[in-house]
Amino acid sequence: MNNPKIMAYFRESAARIDQAMRQDLEVVRDPQLAEVLRYILFNGGKRIRPQLTVLTWRLAGRGRAGGEEALRLALAFEYLHVASLVHDDVIDHSELRRGQPTAQAAWGLAPAILTGDYLHSRALTLAGQVVGREGVELLGRAITAMVEAEFLQARLATAGSSTPAEYFQVTAGKTGALLGSACEAGVLLAGGGPQERAAGRAYGENLGLAFQIVDDLLDYLGDPAKTGKVVGNDLVEGKLTLPLLHALALAETGDRARLLTILAAAPEARRGWVGEVRELIERYGGFVAARGQAEELLEAGLLSLALFPAGPEQELLSGLAAYVLSRDK
Amino acid sequence: MNNPKIMAYFRESAARIDQAMRQDLEVVRDPQLAEVLRYILFNGGKRIRPQLTVLTWRLAGRGRAGGEEALRLALAFEYLHVASLVHDDVIDHSELRRGQPTAQAAWGLAPAILTGDYLHSRALTLAGQVVGREGVELLGRAITAMVEAEFLQARLATAGSSTPAEYFQVTAGKTGALLGSACEAGVLLAGGGPQERAAGRAYGENLGLAFQIVDDLLDYLGDPAKTGKVVGNDLVEGKLTLPLLHALALAETGDRARLLTILAAAPEARRGWVGEVRELIERYGGFVAARGQAEELLEAGLLSLALFPAGPEQELLSGLAAYVLSRDK
Repeated sequence: MNNPKIMAYFRESAARIDQAMRQDLEVVRDPQLAEVLRYILFNGGKRIRPQLTVLTWRLAGRGRAGGEEALRLALAFEYLHVASLVHDDVIDHSELRRGQPTAQAAWGLAPAILTGDYLHSRALTLAGQVVGREGVELLGRAITAMVEAEFLQARLATAGSSTPAEYFQVTAGKTGALLGSACEAGVLLAGGGPQERAAGRAYGENLGLAFQIVDDLLDYLGDPAKTGKVVGNDLVEGKLTLPLLHALALAETGDRARLLTILAAAPEARRGWVGEVRELIERYGGFVAARGQAEELLEAGLLSLALFPAGPEQELLSGLAAYVLSRDK
Repeated sequence: MNNPKIMAYFRESAARIDQAMRQDLEVVRDPQLAEVLRYILFNGGKRIRPQLTVLTWRLAGRGRAGGEEALRLALAFEYLHVASLVHDDVIDHSELRRGQPTAQAAWGLAPAILTGDYLHSRALTLAGQVVGREGVELLGRAITAMVEAEFLQARLATAGSSTPAEYFQVTAGKTGALLGSACEAGVLLAGGGPQERAAGRAYGENLGLAFQIVDDLLDYLGDPAKTGKVVGNDLVEGKLTLPLLHALALAETGDRARLLTILAAAPEARRGWVGEVRELIERYGGFVAARGQAEELLEAGLLSLALFPAGPEQELLSGLAAYVLSRDK
């Protein structure tokens, strides 16, 4: 985000969301649950999901009162996001997240699982309080999509292969559904109809997909000094990211066989082949194709917002799309 | 449950709940998620919680239509119950439940955690669909109570001691809250006011507490041929159940020190002392005191139902209370 005005907006908005979360934590009575919640919620996240709810609410219902309500609804999406990270870290036996011990590393298995359960429950409660039945259904669908995508991803991993179409199906569930729901919720609270809700949702889903694709690109092409991550980590972990899937789909028999051999090798052995795989992806246009898809997704997402009036929210949402594409960390 | 008419009712009602669950599973698209759900939901459970919702709904709103809705709301409580069992089994690294492999033993860590998350989400969604904001809040409070009780129990376990009052606090959260909410939900759906909701809730909470106390008694006094469990398992696991807590509170210095020494020993070593501990509990009236409390709780619970009209539901709910007290397995 190079535009300083837009950057300042997102920074201030994130601070308001943090403030609302701190206030919402006051309902927690158990001191240790409260402590674990503070630990996992306040770790420098950018609060993208709740910001989307607030922004789409302003976009679709300009001039409406109810900022407090929008903020409470917005928290639900940060809670779902963090709950899924905490449970994912348990599933993956991860020790570190953003350089800090994960919840289960810092507090143990029971606090990690239970705090995730609390966040799920609190998220659905907030959505129910602010927008009733439709809000709960919206969140319930997002959770279901995330769970089903995890099952699908595990099956594809076991099968040892997948296609770009399957990649989009998994990513739509794991990332797109929550961002799409966060946007749809804002429109819903603003009183938007089905068409407006779908438009908000499309922007969010596409933003999520594009975000993930850029993540995939940065893993091979990013500057470790900026990303803070080792190049080729996804390959070492055996992740079939979009650039690699494009290369697999387009490679000649010999190169394809070579890629599959590398993928079938032991994870640590793959570390030595990151450069070779990157060259093969490059040769078959995997990076260019993936980047092109991210651009198209963002363009389509922004186009769907044309349904709403022009104004500062449109600029901010465009700014966010531009940031997703240009980010280098 | 010795009354054959009452037994037949609960059996048929459980079958209706099973049928409703099978129907509700049709919304699940992922085949493996559906398979894990069937595995953990259909394992011979008695469906006490959903039955309570249906019964209290009939009790508080006789003559009302809407049995389908009551059944859907009822499912939410079975889902929460099963979700908490599945996540508990993950936390405790349990391999078996009711003689069958637990979800994570049969399917793995990720399916177990994710299926629990799905059930939480589905439960709150159903509650939101059937009774809106108040339904979601009711379930949210039950989940929070269960989570907070787990945190409290873990702290007490670390401290190595607790009191009967703390026992009731933990059990109210772990067991009472869900049964109480299941009953309150039935009354809520039937259009009951605050006083009626509280009365339904009191019955359910007390039923839950009494159920747990009888469980504690059966662990020391039950017939393994009927319970299917080894006598003294709670002691081996270091659980400070109510009879033992009464004994600890009342024992003379020497006997108290002996009990604490046994509790501080290695779990497997405790197996040899089950007989001695049982005698000490007996000597200090721990079993009699605990049983007396279970009886009082059930009496108070039934008394609170006097607010509602007499009729078959009252008989069934009394029958359930009598069953809790008389059960030998």
